[in-house]
Amino acid sequence: MRKIYLSNTPRQEALEIFLSKTSISRRTETKPVSEALGRVTAEPVFARYSMPGYHSAAMDGIAVKAEETFRASDQNPLLLEPEAGYYNINTGSPLPESFDAVIKIEDIHLYEDGKAEILAPATPWQHVRAVGEDVVAGELIVSAFHCLKPADLGALLAGGITEVPLLVKPKVAIIPSGSEIVRAENIREKGSIPDFNSTVIASYLAEWGAAVEIMEIVPDDPGKIEKALTAALEKFDLVIINAGSSAGEKDYTFPVLENIGRVFLHGVATRPGKPTILGEAKGKPVIGLPGYPVSAYMSLEWFARPLIYSYLGLPLPQREKLSVTLGRRVVSELGAEEFVRMSVGYVNDRFIANPLARGAGVTMSLVRADGLLVIPANSLGFEQDEKVEIELYRPLGELHRNLLAAGSHDLILDLLNTALKEKAPDVSLSSSHMGSMGGITAVGRNQAHFAGVHLFDPETGDYNRPYVDKMLPRASTRLITLAYRMQGWIVAKGNPEQVEGIKDLAKNKLSFINRQKGAGTRILFDYLLEKDGLSPSEIYGYEREEHTHLNVAASVAAGTAQVGLGILPAARAFDLDFIPLVEERYDLLMSEDFYNSAEAKLLLSIITDGNFKKQVEALGGYSMRDAGKGQ
Amino acid sequence: MRKIYLSNTPRQEALEIFLSKTSISRRTETKPVSEALGRVTAEPVFARYSMPGYHSAAMDGIAVKAEETFRASDQNPLLLEPEAGYYNINTGSPLPESFDAVIKIEDIHLYEDGKAEILAPATPWQHVRAVGEDVVAGELIVSAFHCLKPADLGALLAGGITEVPLLVKPKVAIIPSGSEIVRAENIREKGSIPDFNSTVIASYLAEWGAAVEIMEIVPDDPGKIEKALTAALEKFDLVIINAGSSAGEKDYTFPVLENIGRVFLHGVATRPGKPTILGEAKGKPVIGLPGYPVSAYMSLEWFARPLIYSYLGLPLPQREKLSVTLGRRVVSELGAEEFVRMSVGYVNDRFIANPLARGAGVTMSLVRADGLLVIPANSLGFEQDEKVEIELYRPLGELHRNLLAAGSHDLILDLLNTALKEKAPDVSLSSSHMGSMGGITAVGRNQAHFAGVHLFDPETGDYNRPYVDKMLPRASTRLITLAYRMQGWIVAKGNPEQVEGIKDLAKNKLSFINRQKGAGTRILFDYLLEKDGLSPSEIYGYEREEHTHLNVAASVAAGTAQVGLGILPAARAFDLDFIPLVEERYDLLMSEDFYNSAEAKLLLSIITDGNFKKQVEALGGYSMRDAGKGQ
Repeated sequence: MRKIYLSNTPRQEALEIFLSKTSISRRTETKPVSEALGRVTAEPVFARYSMPGYHSAAMDGIAVKAEETFRASDQNPLLLEPEAGYYNINTGSPLPESFDAVIKIEDIHLYEDGKAEILAPATPWQHVRAVGEDVVAGELIVSAFHCLKPADLGALLAGGITEVPLLVKPKVAIIPSGSEIVRAENIREKGSIPDFNSTVIASYLAEWGAAVEIMEIVPDDPGKIEKALTAALEKFDLVIINAGSSAGEKDYTFPVLENIGRVFLHGVATRPGKPTILGEAKGKPVIGLPGYPVSAYMSLEWFARPLIYSYLGLPLPQREKLSVTLGRRVVSELGAEEFVRMSVGYVNDRFIANPLARGAGVTMSLVRADGLLVIPANSLGFEQDEKVEIELYRPLGELHRNLLAAGSHDLILDLLNTALKEKAPDVSLSSSHMGSMGGITAVGRNQAHFAGVHLFDPETGDYNRPYVDKMLPRASTRLITLAYRMQGWIVAKGNPEQVEGIKDLAKNKLSFINRQKGAGTRILFDYLLEKDGLSPSEIYGYEREEHTHLNVAASVAAGTAQVGLGILPAARAFDLDFIPLVEERYDLLMSEDFYNSAEAKLLLSIITDGNFKKQVEALGGYSMRDAGKGQ
Repeated sequence: MRKIYLSNTPRQEALEIFLSKTSISRRTETKPVSEALGRVTAEPVFARYSMPGYHSAAMDGIAVKAEETFRASDQNPLLLEPEAGYYNINTGSPLPESFDAVIKIEDIHLYEDGKAEILAPATPWQHVRAVGEDVVAGELIVSAFHCLKPADLGALLAGGITEVPLLVKPKVAIIPSGSEIVRAENIREKGSIPDFNSTVIASYLAEWGAAVEIMEIVPDDPGKIEKALTAALEKFDLVIINAGSSAGEKDYTFPVLENIGRVFLHGVATRPGKPTILGEAKGKPVIGLPGYPVSAYMSLEWFARPLIYSYLGLPLPQREKLSVTLGRRVVSELGAEEFVRMSVGYVNDRFIANPLARGAGVTMSLVRADGLLVIPANSLGFEQDEKVEIELYRPLGELHRNLLAAGSHDLILDLLNTALKEKAPDVSLSSSHMGSMGGITAVGRNQAHFAGVHLFDPETGDYNRPYVDKMLPRASTRLITLAYRMQGWIVAKGNPEQVEGIKDLAKNKLSFINRQKGAGTRILFDYLLEKDGLSPSEIYGYEREEHTHLNVAASVAAGTAQVGLGILPAARAFDLDFIPLVEERYDLLMSEDFYNSAEAKLLLSIITDGNFKKQVEALGGYSMRDAGKGQ
């Protein structure tokens, strides 16, 4: 039996252990100010010169000697001689020697003989910018450990500083490890995994101010990992190994680090992110990150970011917080802090948040996340409609017009997303795939702005309306047709099993991949079964569920299922065959309130637009003939 | 008379005119994903491959055929043969053909003969990551007009996308203009102004996503400006001319743009920022920015930023808002929106904001600003203690521990700033220079955390305490000595006027530069006058006030004053002579509440630290012998 030795150290405690036992040594370099944007000062910087460097005019007008103007008044205009009595002067020009005031151009009259008439005295130093008004020599411009913003660069240059002492960017090496890992650019082969983690890790680190290098991929071989780590420790301030940080047979980060350095801890009480290793070797911090992408990126943020910010002397940025209402229940197991990516929208005067896919591998959940729900280790989670606080991944300002689409997903929603942004950059769209029935419920509970539904009612032969009437009898809603689309059997290229109808599935014991309960396509399949007098138990794989058309097609393409039911574009995405079965109506359900909003009007203007319709029909299997029609 | 033709268009209206009449044409390029961080997509991007690309183990363990395990139980352990019955499998490895479930390593027993014992059946597809669980081929990864974050790059690579269609960065030319303008790196000469604006403008534009080039400096010559503009319009998407945008004799941006293109408007109803020009030529937008730095940068943000964000299809970022109490009155004139840079701190359970220098030229006010107060055109401003909403320049999280120092300024506070950040990166320091008397008032009103005071009381011969007792008789405060420092006469090198005492000023009618009312140094000067039986009217320049020691020294160095009263480091900063006069005590006044806070303890630990004391005394003119002592 392999040894299981992951500890369960709370995250905050793990960070304290890490930062107390290791750090990155500070180094300084001097750079031209023009290359210092976003960099961090190593020392306080004081102005060398004053700006302006001389007394100068603050207005366009004439320079005068105030003493000589004291008698001027409306009744007693004073005429000044050029040069002896006044000089023309423009804003910013130096005050001539022995002149000490400026009179505005609007307040003087210039005669053709060159004399200037004034009707009021000038007070000494009026409209004069004193030397050093903007920046005075000796003044502190920026303290040490200050991240330089554009205006700071201006003040530095104004103060005569052209080169600035900066903290050298901490140098970080990323060692991608794993025998199955190949460069992301390589052709895909079964059993190989493209190394996209390194690019993501490098990008985060670069955003935080590090200078990053991605090393060669190292196979699962302790000798080779040790060699790569030792080499990286020579040149870099921090080394990150990804992955091999768990406790499996081929996870070598732990023994290698134990061999040439020290492991401070192995295992953090979080989900995802648990198999993290924190340690040091040759006086440099070393982090072993898990292989699952979401785990890796979260662990990176928890441990590498504070290390870098501590080196830079900057406060660790905190995400904006928002109080939201949970659209769905979020359960959690005791004993580990849990991190759930959430989509967030403003529905019916409150912020609603719904959990996204929770798998540690689902990079798309981070792509789609508007926020993060942190569930404490001692909590079993939260109920639907409970108020919780989440951390925001996007600025709060953007979320006010983030539309939540629930229900059945369709590719058209993806096109809508881009079309919306093109028309109104501050409107965005987050869709959760929860099936048509879930979508109707979500709209009824004000947990989504609208829902895609395609539910066939055998009794009436109609789509959607009978379900909405039954499920939301008292709600005031609108049902707007988006498109007609073709459902059919998704089968391998050439239809090797000669699938023509549902009877072939039962008769030939074909392995089927089903959709989740509540999905319109699942309800269609159940209707087809009933119509032909078949029972679910006659279908091999009836219990095996996927949540999207594309995932159904992916299983058929992978050969783990022989037949699925879905839409044409899904089959096309995998170059599979498609046997058309029925054209169904796909509507958008929305509350009357949302229907009357500016956002809904925008939505409708797009789906009834000729170009948009063409774009959709070009996907294949769609008809937009009734797009925008109320049902 | 020169013509004055600035209009007064409200800012929002000006922006609408600008964006409705011109824009930047979109262009697309394709770049490797690894170079796309922070860039904006030109098209929606769909996954090409699925991730994982095959069914794989989600756990370390053995792959089995679920059907063959149905009989296994505690009472009836099942032995599986290697290869025929099971395969060892690690997380992420592909499931062998015809195997459809994984049993965790913890749940099996491996015998030496190679057989595996299980005590429970496996359900089909348990612990299997289905093909496409993370990203499924055909799935929308990111929509168009999406700014790519690190995780997005991971999802793109995971989905088999190695190159991504991006919007080309808009190309912006900055033309620095003005006969007095020289490159910022040049040696300073009277009458020349270093071009620091171009670096700041370029830095802002780069942060907003543009590709920027700074052109050669062009003198105030309409022909040369036209030539430079025409050349820039050939290659760039947007041209910015800085400055020459006002209505003065040598302001040529308006006539040049009228000549080769169109001016949409000239003059915006704002302060600063009024002399802005918006127009176009050769189908490209052109912006004429004012020369004063703060005006230029604000106008840039109001007009260039929305143009660029509109090109990129991104929502315009909004700054975080904060409700604050005004520590001081802020007056405003009617007819123009006014923008006041503010320092912000959290004092006594509320956020306090104080206005910084309001001059359009004071770049340092932007450097020091924590937030911005926008006063509407129809408002006369706000009273002290009034609640107002401001926009934040720094994250709200940082402001909770931003210490507000009021009162007299001293160079030691600048060193404290860096020392604080070194010990606690999340603590920062904003100081306003308001003189010792103002500082006592501010602490009494809970408008600052502490104040620097150095007030000599002739009656008692003591410093500070008598003033605090008189001004804040009921407040519970602490007075902590920071340092003793030498005050003296600041005079030109070699002391040409042989200044020895205050009588020399009166006798020789030397021009004096005074400090503002309420400043400790002003009170000291008044005491000296009285002691020697002199009256203010006998001092030439008594009415001329500066707000800091350094600004006093700057006036002496510029030759516009012959004598000032101030501290040694100020004289040194300008290589002036210093005639020592009196050693005074400089204390920090703070409320009892603040004295008991963690921040005050940190402050005290720094000022009593031996290294810090050495650092201060090295400045010259300081003694730290009583640093940290309560008075």
